[in-house]
Amino acid sequence: MDAAHLARAVELASLGPSWGPNPRVGCVIVAADGTVLGEGWHRGAGTPHAEPAALADARSRGLDVAGATAYVTLEPCAHTGRTGPCTDALTEARIGAVRYAVADPNPLAAGGGAVLRSRGIDARHEAFGPARAINRRWLGAAETGRPWVIAKWAQTLDGRTAAVDGTSFWVTGEEARAHAHGVRAEVDAILVGTGTVLTDDPSLSARPPHVDDAHQPLRAVMGLRDTFGAKVWRDENALALATRDPHEALGMLAAREVRTVVVEGGGTVTTAFLRAGLVDEVHAYIAPAILGAGTAAVGDLGIGTMGGALRGQDVTATALGVDTLVTAFFQRGPQ
Amino acid sequence: MDAAHLARAVELASLGPSWGPNPRVGCVIVAADGTVLGEGWHRGAGTPHAEPAALADARSRGLDVAGATAYVTLEPCAHTGRTGPCTDALTEARIGAVRYAVADPNPLAAGGGAVLRSRGIDARHEAFGPARAINRRWLGAAETGRPWVIAKWAQTLDGRTAAVDGTSFWVTGEEARAHAHGVRAEVDAILVGTGTVLTDDPSLSARPPHVDDAHQPLRAVMGLRDTFGAKVWRDENALALATRDPHEALGMLAAREVRTVVVEGGGTVTTAFLRAGLVDEVHAYIAPAILGAGTAAVGDLGIGTMGGALRGQDVTATALGVDTLVTAFFQRGPQ
Ligand SMILES: NC(=O)c1ccc[n+]([C@@H]2O[C@H](COP(=O)([O-])OP(=O)(O)OC[C@H]3O[C@@H](n4cnc5c(N)ncnc54)[C@H](OP(=O)(O)O)[C@@H]3O)[C@@H](O)[C@H]2O)c1
Ligand SMILES: NC(=O)c1ccc[n+]([C@@H]2O[C@H](COP(=O)([O-])OP(=O)(O)OC[C@H]3O[C@@H](n4cnc5c(N)ncnc54)[C@H](OP(=O)(O)O)[C@@H]3O)[C@@H](O)[C@H]2O)c1
Repeated sequence: MDAAHLARAVELASLGPSWGPNPRVGCVIVAADGTVLGEGWHRGAGTPHAEPAALADARSRGLDVAGATAYVTLEPCAHTGRTGPCTDALTEARIGAVRYAVADPNPLAAGGGAVLRSRGIDARHEAFGPARAINRRWLGAAETGRPWVIAKWAQTLDGRTAAVDGTSFWVTGEEARAHAHGVRAEVDAILVGTGTVLTDDPSLSARPPHVDDAHQPLRAVMGLRDTFGAKVWRDENALALATRDPHEALGMLAAREVRTVVVEGGGTVTTAFLRAGLVDEVHAYIAPAILGAGTAAVGDLGIGTMGGALRGQDVTATALGVDTLVTAFFQRGPQ
Repeated sequence: MDAAHLARAVELASLGPSWGPNPRVGCVIVAADGTVLGEGWHRGAGTPHAEPAALADARSRGLDVAGATAYVTLEPCAHTGRTGPCTDALTEARIGAVRYAVADPNPLAAGGGAVLRSRGIDARHEAFGPARAINRRWLGAAETGRPWVIAKWAQTLDGRTAAVDGTSFWVTGEEARAHAHGVRAEVDAILVGTGTVLTDDPSLSARPPHVDDAHQPLRAVMGLRDTFGAKVWRDENALALATRDPHEALGMLAAREVRTVVVEGGGTVTTAFLRAGLVDEVHAYIAPAILGAGTAAVGDLGIGTMGGALRGQDVTATALGVDTLVTAFFQRGPQ
């Protein structure tokens, strides 16, 4: 029963954007007899949270939520940010019970459950896997206090991202490239090294097929050299990270409220993030091609033996035309 | 109508072994009113071909096949090999028509269709994709006159087969290794270099899970050094290929009636076959692991630019536990 309402709340949450500083949250308000009184979800920073949205939905239908249960994918917030505390909204509406699927890891916003209980509301954490999965990246960022890092590259079967002469167009085919554009439109920022900007002058925009006004992530360029005049600087939605320290780079991105960043290369920068133990997720687009020589996708990490290899989990393999996308999650390193 | 009978013939063909010098062939004999009179398939070298097997099936059921149509996945043979010509068996049984899905590429056995027509039988080649697919490796071998070569390796995501210190156990997990044992049990031979034998002393047996007496392929060791005493020499089913020339090695295997060989490494030998343009199919087992250094799955092939990369087609990607198997077919090189 609870699971069905929480599953619906996750469905609602998924309607919100995956980018931006806030998590995706959904809320369903259900009467004692099982009638759904209101539904809401968070549409992004600066808009109402899921709980006030669901309360407003019930109100707009002329329904009284007093004594009803609110199912929320994330612990209701107890603080005033861009909007007022959800705990107050729920209290004022005389909600009887709250079930939340994930405890809020954000120290600023956390404690909502306890606040509600102190006001006599039957609020309870009810762990629900899909609610955690839908915000996996955001939760990871909240837990570490730095952006969630996806390292993405396109390689031949034998792990090459460029040939001996430096050519790298195109490793993979159209479907794979379209997919990568879709991923860009889901995140807050793309990061590349100065080397890639100076070599390829990429526009680093999100151009998923059949989407007119895709969300455009922040374009970040890491490294000390000047890349003035490159296409990435065509508008304000770009940031120079004048450092070679991945920790520092992530700090600068965090200051811009970046929660998810795709590190798109080149190999030097990707290797630096891997070496620092700062890669949470890998997206390797693998072409059925063999080069035998050229630039390796990943450079030396100081790993000398098979037992020391970085090992991913929750692997997916997706066919994209002739190419295969392998994704995996990596445990954060010690640093 | 024809397609349905040919599809059934392919089904029957698939009951035969994929190893051995002969192709897999199925045959269905159908009366004018659509009644199936007999079915047969080839069970391997030295046993009856599919057509005599189907004729015998009809006979054992007391059915007369005079005037009926025989659907065969491959052109009936017109020569006497280990068994008599199928054209004679079909003629003697007074079969009225023959539909064969693939023309026999073997110059010794080909011409059966013409022989049948010269005897007044309505014999016709009716192309049917699945009949070609089921014997893709055998047909490739027949067309080139050398064994079909599958290059197989296990690599990390970033294309390493061993770490800096030489360790390579285990790149991939149990499911991937079990799958590779299944492939071994489907082919005529496994080939490795002396380097792998001297380093790992592998037994090179086929041990697919839940199979008691798997077909054991010939074990072939390529290279000039003596590997006396290694496990591969435990019984007669092994062959030393005292050469470094892949063409010569394949010639020796062909002389042993090998039609399909899996080249299992190491990198030196695999690279030599790729460089010679002698790899027809690649099986890359890809672990969600990252090493950053170590032995590359494929060494220098003399390819300097992305446009020169070897490109595979008919790609499959299969999840095997946390690992991914990518298979692809490669056009035979110029040599
Ligand atoms: N196949 C793919 O997926 C893919 C993706 C992207 C790029 N590429 C190819 O990769 C090539 C560029 O690769 P790349 O490795 O030279 O470029 P890169 O990683 O984009 O940039 C390297 C530069 O970034 C700066 N940098 C930032 N952090 C650093 C650190 N921690 N350590 C060292 N340097 C750091 C350095 O320049 P400063 O002196 O400015 O600090 C360094 O030279 C191009 O040919 C491109 O086409 C392929
Ligand atoms: N991850 C995997 O899938 C996998 C699979 C197999 C092996 N491995 C690892 O790979 C390593 C062995 O690799 P390897 O490359 O040294 O061994 P290899 O390819 O098995 O053997 C190389 C040797 O074969 C002979 N050879 C035959 N044809 C040759 C040619 N055309 N060119 C040059 N030499 C030729 C040479 O020795 P002669 O002097 O005797 O002629 C050469 O030293 C081991 O560490 C093993 O664990 C990994």
